[in-house]
Amino acid sequence: MSRTAAALVIGNELLSGKIREANLYELAQMLRSLGIRLERALMILDDLEIIAREVRALSESYDFVFTSGGIGPTHDDMTIDAVAHAFGVGVSTNPEMEAMLREHHGERLKEGHLRVARVPTGATQIKADKIKWPVTVFNNVWILPGVPQIFKIKLEIIRERLGVDRPFVSRAVFSNLDEGTLKPMLDEVVAEYPAVDVGSYPTWEDLGYKTKLTFDGKDADAVEIAVQTFVAKLPEGEPLRIE
Amino acid sequence: MSRTAAALVIGNELLSGKIREANLYELAQMLRSLGIRLERALMILDDLEIIAREVRALSESYDFVFTSGGIGPTHDDMTIDAVAHAFGVGVSTNPEMEAMLREHHGERLKEGHLRVARVPTGATQIKADKIKWPVTVFNNVWILPGVPQIFKIKLEIIRERLGVDRPFVSRAVFSNLDEGTLKPMLDEVVAEYPAVDVGSYPTWEDLGYKTKLTFDGKDADAVEIAVQTFVAKLPEGEPLRIE
Repeated sequence: MSRTAAALVIGNELLSGKIREANLYELAQMLRSLGIRLERALMILDDLEIIAREVRALSESYDFVFTSGGIGPTHDDMTIDAVAHAFGVGVSTNPEMEAMLREHHGERLKEGHLRVARVPTGATQIKADKIKWPVTVFNNVWILPGVPQIFKIKLEIIRERLGVDRPFVSRAVFSNLDEGTLKPMLDEVVAEYPAVDVGSYPTWEDLGYKTKLTFDGKDADAVEIAVQTFVAKLPEGEPLRIE
Repeated sequence: MSRTAAALVIGNELLSGKIREANLYELAQMLRSLGIRLERALMILDDLEIIAREVRALSESYDFVFTSGGIGPTHDDMTIDAVAHAFGVGVSTNPEMEAMLREHHGERLKEGHLRVARVPTGATQIKADKIKWPVTVFNNVWILPGVPQIFKIKLEIIRERLGVDRPFVSRAVFSNLDEGTLKPMLDEVVAEYPAVDVGSYPTWEDLGYKTKLTFDGKDADAVEIAVQTFVAKLPEGEPLRIE
């Protein structure tokens, strides 16, 4: 069985269409490369009760939960309080993070600046070699920032800490046939190889093919046999290529 | 009260990081322009039971639900069956859609092609003037395609049908101060104008400002007063600009 994960993306600005969400794709790719299966992603508003309820529910259902957003110092940053609320703990100021903030801001330090050193009481701070500011983790909930440039840097900490288990193997077959024509051939392969995740993606742009078929799984031999079984069913001149 | 909406984005290829999700942002912007509040977006795997459960739950909690993906003819396209399952109805072939498919494919028509004319029994088909292929709607669930080029076209049908109620008014104030410094001034405005949604977004790129403050609401006067109240609290030389 794969380790599983869920993502909780927090922010009014995303649901109101002011900002295009950018972190999920990076997270999805990184988890994939570690052999971790991202099974659900949820985008919600800045609302403490809702964040807390979803954190709790996802935490119980998946091996890992990754939150994105809501960890700045202002009134609309609620993720730290919500995670604390979800697990029935308080919020404390982390001394090491506080020291870093005091050093950074010097005599211009305001009370507001120290708010980003707040963590759910009992949380762990995880650092990577080259990344000074830690990621706060409570139980299986990794609390990540929403700003895409910073989010991407933090993914390195996750990669270092979680490591790779058995990775996914992915193959793709490109065809000039449409999905309606391919369907019976696909159905046979899907029925025969339940351990292989078969996807079918039509294109509406001129990419030189009509349909991309994907074959994914953790059993490399099963994936390869499923690909070859499918390809053998195709008519002459097909497939266009296999990747 | 605003009309509310939720989005349900379906597809293994999105959660596995193979494809970057592209429809949510378009949907969010369009709903915003209609004065409809998108409150939640959920991204899930191709799994009939999960899709059905989420469709049902979202349908009960929001005025509108928009699904994206899973309406092609292949084994991984489950949205039609899932919506039918969610509401305890069967699946039928829509005669008008079937006729269009027969005309389009002619003598090369396969059984697979007709699968995209399947709809939850009792569903409505909604068309726009210039868009021949309809959107299928069951109760308050709008069933949209996953392919971004087609999804975008279908948004026009939604826009025509749902129309604009009272639109949102949005203002933005750009500041060279950081969030920690702005926090006490923001807190006062947030407390004073509960009908105005105030957001604070730091930037980590060199965009010529440090923090963007947003003021949103349906009461244009309240938004304007909140902006002016906030601006009056800023020190000399601030704000950089108001939009």
